[in-house]
Amino acid sequence: MSGLEPHQLSLNTATVREQWNLAQCIEGCARHGFGGISPWRDKLQEMGVKPAAKAIRDAGLGVSGLCRGGWYTATGALDQAVIDDNHRAVDEAAEIGADCLVMVVGGLAEGSRDLPHAWAVVEEGLATTLEYARKAGVKVAIEPLHPMYAADRACVNTMRQALDICDRLGPGIGCAVDAYHVWWDPELEAQLKRAGKERIMGFHLCDWLVPTRDLLTDRGMMGDGVIDLPRLRGLVEANGFSGLNEVEIFSALDWWRRDADEVMAVIVERGRTAC
Amino acid sequence: MSGLEPHQLSLNTATVREQWNLAQCIEGCARHGFGGISPWRDKLQEMGVKPAAKAIRDAGLGVSGLCRGGWYTATGALDQAVIDDNHRAVDEAAEIGADCLVMVVGGLAEGSRDLPHAWAVVEEGLATTLEYARKAGVKVAIEPLHPMYAADRACVNTMRQALDICDRLGPGIGCAVDAYHVWWDPELEAQLKRAGKERIMGFHLCDWLVPTRDLLTDRGMMGDGVIDLPRLRGLVEANGFSGLNEVEIFSALDWWRRDADEVMAVIVERGRTAC
Repeated sequence: MSGLEPHQLSLNTATVREQWNLAQCIEGCARHGFGGISPWRDKLQEMGVKPAAKAIRDAGLGVSGLCRGGWYTATGALDQAVIDDNHRAVDEAAEIGADCLVMVVGGLAEGSRDLPHAWAVVEEGLATTLEYARKAGVKVAIEPLHPMYAADRACVNTMRQALDICDRLGPGIGCAVDAYHVWWDPELEAQLKRAGKERIMGFHLCDWLVPTRDLLTDRGMMGDGVIDLPRLRGLVEANGFSGLNEVEIFSALDWWRRDADEVMAVIVERGRTAC
Repeated sequence: MSGLEPHQLSLNTATVREQWNLAQCIEGCARHGFGGISPWRDKLQEMGVKPAAKAIRDAGLGVSGLCRGGWYTATGALDQAVIDDNHRAVDEAAEIGADCLVMVVGGLAEGSRDLPHAWAVVEEGLATTLEYARKAGVKVAIEPLHPMYAADRACVNTMRQALDICDRLGPGIGCAVDAYHVWWDPELEAQLKRAGKERIMGFHLCDWLVPTRDLLTDRGMMGDGVIDLPRLRGLVEANGFSGLNEVEIFSALDWWRRDADEVMAVIVERGRTAC
């Protein structure tokens, strides 16, 4: 299996979030030959959704996703402010032509230990967003997060769990498959097959470092960790995924401290050699 | 559901590993009214297996487990030194009358990214240990570790995965259910039911802190985190588990720094109020 060429890559803006604003990310992606971008909403709103959409189009970039909707459990029950914010996220995803709206669904509400309740709130929330998203022509991609984030970020933590939700909610909803979150899962191969082309809506790359020094911000550059990325990419592609390979690296201890053009150059090199 | 009384508790010696040797742990358990103890092998060997076995019996303590066998992937392939060491662990478990030998199966070998290979080595290793353990009358308990340890400690990370292995290997092997490792799993309830009385061989208590500051040594005292321990204990007991409730807290930042008798007193209090 040959590696990835830059035009097959997308930059998730979190990877250089400390260095570049969205305009710089767009310009950097174009300059380094990337095929696309995946903005976070804070950077998108800072630039303005319409100007950003225009700049992305003008640069000839695809949009592999918009990060992120979800967070349904923020106040315990599903509240209208959260629903409304997710509707705005759908509108933004439509405006920039994102392949999907990536959902980080939320974990336990402050002070709660009731995981079954959180699961119920999340599913109710996803149903409301999905209904709105179908009308807007936007795909909704649940991102199962690593189980170490079950309490404070997302209580959907495996592909099986995400696909069970998708089965219940029907068309228009699928998964964003992030190597960091799912690589360990003995069911991964079977669940990717179950997901199929329609429901593998995104594929995110980074690596799992040993040791991992921080639960959130110590993700590795592809090739620096233990994930068999070529195997995982092979599985995703064998099941029909043909979208951009989105690079999303949270790295307070390393990559966020480097010059962004250096980061981009290393991504290009590792796409070729480690993916 | 009422809380736990001290005679229902067992002390995993890791909880006070920085403060007490095994003789002190045994004496401390007896003094605080614990029903049992679960030694780690380093502390057991330091005291001597026979003297330790006698001291535990003389103190009237049960032995909820011996920590730990496994680590099959240490050198990549399954090697004889690892097999032999696991046989010694079985002998030690028999000598101290442990309810089970707890298995931390091992993760990826140094430099490897081949998770399917690690799974195969682990299963082969478990089969060899199980054969030996059956003759010795020792139960083998796979401890599925949290997925964040898949790379460097254990590549068996869910109850489903552990029970699939148990199904293939037959009688005498089951699971040690540790709240810290499994609390997030949406399949937990179904898999505990699947496991049943015969295969729930141990139940370990601690708590998941938010935030968690270190992947290995920042586990919480029961009640200080987000795990619904009464619900989990209810599930374990509803499926037939009637053994000791083993408290195992790795806490370099907090509990390992406190006076061990204070730790024991807090465990007794939290057993009553948070479990």
